[in-house]
Amino acid sequence: MTADVLSLLNTGAALADDALERLLPAPTIEPHSIHRAMRHSTFAGGKRLRPILCMEAARCVARELPPAAPNLGAAIEMVHTYSLIHDDLPALDNDDLRRGKQTCHKVFGEAIAILAGDALLTLAFKTLAEAPLDTAMRRVNVIEEVATAAGTVNGMVGGQVADIEAEGKEVTPQILEFIHRSKTAALIRGAVTAGGIAGGAGDAHIDRLRRFGEQIGWAFQIVDDILDVEESSAALGKTAGKDEAQKKATYPALYGIEKSRAMADDLSKKALRELDCYGERAGRVRALSQFLLARRS
Amino acid sequence: MTADVLSLLNTGAALADDALERLLPAPTIEPHSIHRAMRHSTFAGGKRLRPILCMEAARCVARELPPAAPNLGAAIEMVHTYSLIHDDLPALDNDDLRRGKQTCHKVFGEAIAILAGDALLTLAFKTLAEAPLDTAMRRVNVIEEVATAAGTVNGMVGGQVADIEAEGKEVTPQILEFIHRSKTAALIRGAVTAGGIAGGAGDAHIDRLRRFGEQIGWAFQIVDDILDVEESSAALGKTAGKDEAQKKATYPALYGIEKSRAMADDLSKKALRELDCYGERAGRVRALSQFLLARRS
Repeated sequence: MTADVLSLLNTGAALADDALERLLPAPTIEPHSIHRAMRHSTFAGGKRLRPILCMEAARCVARELPPAAPNLGAAIEMVHTYSLIHDDLPALDNDDLRRGKQTCHKVFGEAIAILAGDALLTLAFKTLAEAPLDTAMRRVNVIEEVATAAGTVNGMVGGQVADIEAEGKEVTPQILEFIHRSKTAALIRGAVTAGGIAGGAGDAHIDRLRRFGEQIGWAFQIVDDILDVEESSAALGKTAGKDEAQKKATYPALYGIEKSRAMADDLSKKALRELDCYGERAGRVRALSQFLLARRS
Repeated sequence: MTADVLSLLNTGAALADDALERLLPAPTIEPHSIHRAMRHSTFAGGKRLRPILCMEAARCVARELPPAAPNLGAAIEMVHTYSLIHDDLPALDNDDLRRGKQTCHKVFGEAIAILAGDALLTLAFKTLAEAPLDTAMRRVNVIEEVATAAGTVNGMVGGQVADIEAEGKEVTPQILEFIHRSKTAALIRGAVTAGGIAGGAGDAHIDRLRRFGEQIGWAFQIVDDILDVEESSAALGKTAGKDEAQKKATYPALYGIEKSRAMADDLSKKALRELDCYGERAGRVRALSQFLLARRS
């Protein structure tokens, strides 16, 4: 890892954390339990990749960090966190631990965990509607992008459902692609596109960023699946190899590790070509993407 | 019931149903199960009171039905439906039936029911962002109102949490008021205010409609609690007297039926006074409110 990327990740995560701290209701506001639960899962050690990609896409377009970008990134992290809380529930993945910490329903009970997820999703849209963007139209455009990215048609919930339905079944490459593009890539696409809108990008640039985001997000999920197979439980802080044990649809299961890694590399190259027109300005996004896809943990 | 109110309710419900049919993904779109689950609960016999109040508030301000109002009403009905799906889950109220039909998780399983609720909430905000209002600012304003109404601070989820926390405990009048104003009144306030925004109301009128909506929604919940005590299981299509059995915080439990009805009447009078400035134009909203609060089933 270069020192540059490390500093970019640390600075970005700190900006995202500051925004989340500001935007989430204080734990002293009634009803306490829901605000404590929202904060428990939001501040459970996430790397803030989605906010960082959002902010870096915005910076790439605008040549500096637009003032609204941290709030947009925070809103997208709220959507990501809500999806993890609901995904961990007994009726879904039934996970007791995430990143080495107890999951929301283990600490607060299932009812509060369900409602904490609901509340984070709701607060995400409130945050986007109130984001300090220069026009109301940009706020509306960001909301449309994020709502589509989180929805059932080309979006996260659609991917989660397809993933559940594929469990224990023989999956085709088409279904696997649908799951990965929807479950993970869509929200990363939403993060990058929201950043582009905050940076003032026009329609052609937005389309370019949308393709970049979806491909890099897809590659990212393939790498994540590979890591799940390779890494030990302790290193990841969650039950490694669980995907395999549950017969989840993954790239390594369908193609093997070597071919999966080649596919991720290919997608990543395609994604980065979308940034060619930005030249040097895309240096940070490029370095970040390469780092994320080369990670071994 | 006067023929006028009956026709208003029927016409309004048909408009809301048309909008929901148009806005919800078809059951033939992949993944099928989530779209079938979203439709199962959305078209399970709701009276569409929130969309109707939204449309009538819009009509009161604009003197005719603004083109965006049915979509706004439909979005609010999606928020209401998501809250019912999650509320019926085993971890919350554990209800097998609602309006005489099987609840979402009984038909589709808990995982799909949780995700169907999530998807309806997400689609609600997408619908608001794409609503055919005349300015993007009005769309942003509606999203802020609805997100606040559905959230944890003066909003629906906050009320649900307070309700859960109050179970089996002695509740004070203050806690009971917090629960009712948040759990039910807030979203009705959001529906009325969204309608006002669609009608082009200025800030002073929006404030007036916000007060009207909150008070009428609060009164509505008191009447609902009274009905729960009075009505038989068959007439309501749900397990009547369940609130009492679960020792839920209700007005009849704290004040008795007679005093509760007087409180609802008082709130309703206060609410209707907010509409005085609209004169005859508020006739439909006024008739609707009076009908809702006088209902015996």
